[in-house]
Amino acid sequence: MLVYGKNVAKDLLKNNKDVRKIYFQEGFSDNDIILLSEKLNIPVNYCSKKEMDRLCSGVHQGIILDIPDFSYYDFKRFLNEDISNVVILDHIEDPHNFGAIIRTCEAAGIEYIIIPKDRQVPVNATVMKTSVGTLDTVKIISVTNLVNTIEQLKKVGFWIVGTTLENSVDYRDVDYSGKIALIIGNEGAGMSQLVRKKCDYLVKIPMYGKTNSLNASVAAGIMIYEMIRNRK
Amino acid sequence: MLVYGKNVAKDLLKNNKDVRKIYFQEGFSDNDIILLSEKLNIPVNYCSKKEMDRLCSGVHQGIILDIPDFSYYDFKRFLNEDISNVVILDHIEDPHNFGAIIRTCEAAGIEYIIIPKDRQVPVNATVMKTSVGTLDTVKIISVTNLVNTIEQLKKVGFWIVGTTLENSVDYRDVDYSGKIALIIGNEGAGMSQLVRKKCDYLVKIPMYGKTNSLNASVAAGIMIYEMIRNRK
Repeated sequence: MLVYGKNVAKDLLKNNKDVRKIYFQEGFSDNDIILLSEKLNIPVNYCSKKEMDRLCSGVHQGIILDIPDFSYYDFKRFLNEDISNVVILDHIEDPHNFGAIIRTCEAAGIEYIIIPKDRQVPVNATVMKTSVGTLDTVKIISVTNLVNTIEQLKKVGFWIVGTTLENSVDYRDVDYSGKIALIIGNEGAGMSQLVRKKCDYLVKIPMYGKTNSLNASVAAGIMIYEMIRNRK
Repeated sequence: MLVYGKNVAKDLLKNNKDVRKIYFQEGFSDNDIILLSEKLNIPVNYCSKKEMDRLCSGVHQGIILDIPDFSYYDFKRFLNEDISNVVILDHIEDPHNFGAIIRTCEAAGIEYIIIPKDRQVPVNATVMKTSVGTLDTVKIISVTNLVNTIEQLKKVGFWIVGTTLENSVDYRDVDYSGKIALIIGNEGAGMSQLVRKKCDYLVKIPMYGKTNSLNASVAAGIMIYEMIRNRK
């Protein structure tokens, strides 16, 4: 997998992560990164800006790194652990939203995020860049069927909290003290019907304007910090 | 000012906003937008993809609109109104963050945002796209000197709440029932020293991970909804 950007590079190199190869744009001049890559004996290619732009579609800042594909965490292993909070993404499409949600989970001490395999942005280069440094702490679990996954979570004691504007209660009026799985819906369509039906609580963030729409990662941030509000 | 994207176009045309000219990419096929532009008799140019890309640097989806420059709201007028909450941005640089904060303010019923003239992203095409539809409700006030502005806010009864990790109290432990001006700091550097010194309260969102950093628009969302938490 190709990832890019100076912050991502520094994070990978300083933490001695497996980097197979580095592509530098000709004239690249960040000495910290160059020295680190030399110290770690990582094979290096120098490329023109045109070649760099062809390798990656994002703002690469003159550095692209080839690393092993992202390793997802095993759901069965998760079920055997003593976890009190998990966040489930019901088909988030925007990699910036996914990255920001990973960062929020890390800050809030939430160590696991469950995502569906299909119609959901995977952990790609943009997600790695947006979530920089936090994918060491937060484990991502990729599952085939969200509805089955939620049923298994219920069997081990999780209460399922979904966010939706319809037929829902104020997000401040729910007791989050038990084991909580918080579901964040798709940016446009929200939660899918089948997932919605599995929820123990449906909650909404009250809105006082005309548009009734918060950015998905902002809504996730408000909900995640509500879930852990009474933690000390 | 050139703005772009189908959602922005629909919002402007449906609300009968002043659009001087529309640039369509050859082959543009969204009939809603084409019919609206014909109904409103807006002058139209058809351009090649190359010409469109030259006109704007973002994802234009085949439509670019020329509209009058954004009108900022007057601070003196604001001071004469009876307002209980205002958000101040202390040099936010990323237009996506600015746009998301405008959306959050609109959802939370916060009608005014104060920004500094320098080293702050202005209301540009990306901000309009990210905040789509909410700049009708939320007024943006652009000021020359944030410190002077804060002093004037204090004179009309505002309490100043700033967000910072150092020497600050938990964000849940502050009484937000009075007139509150909430300051959101720069993405990297946080609040500037001079602004920080003017704060009545310094608060932090507790973090339980290793990175101690939330996305600026996520942190703003958590703080804005905390400020209005006790509103009914």
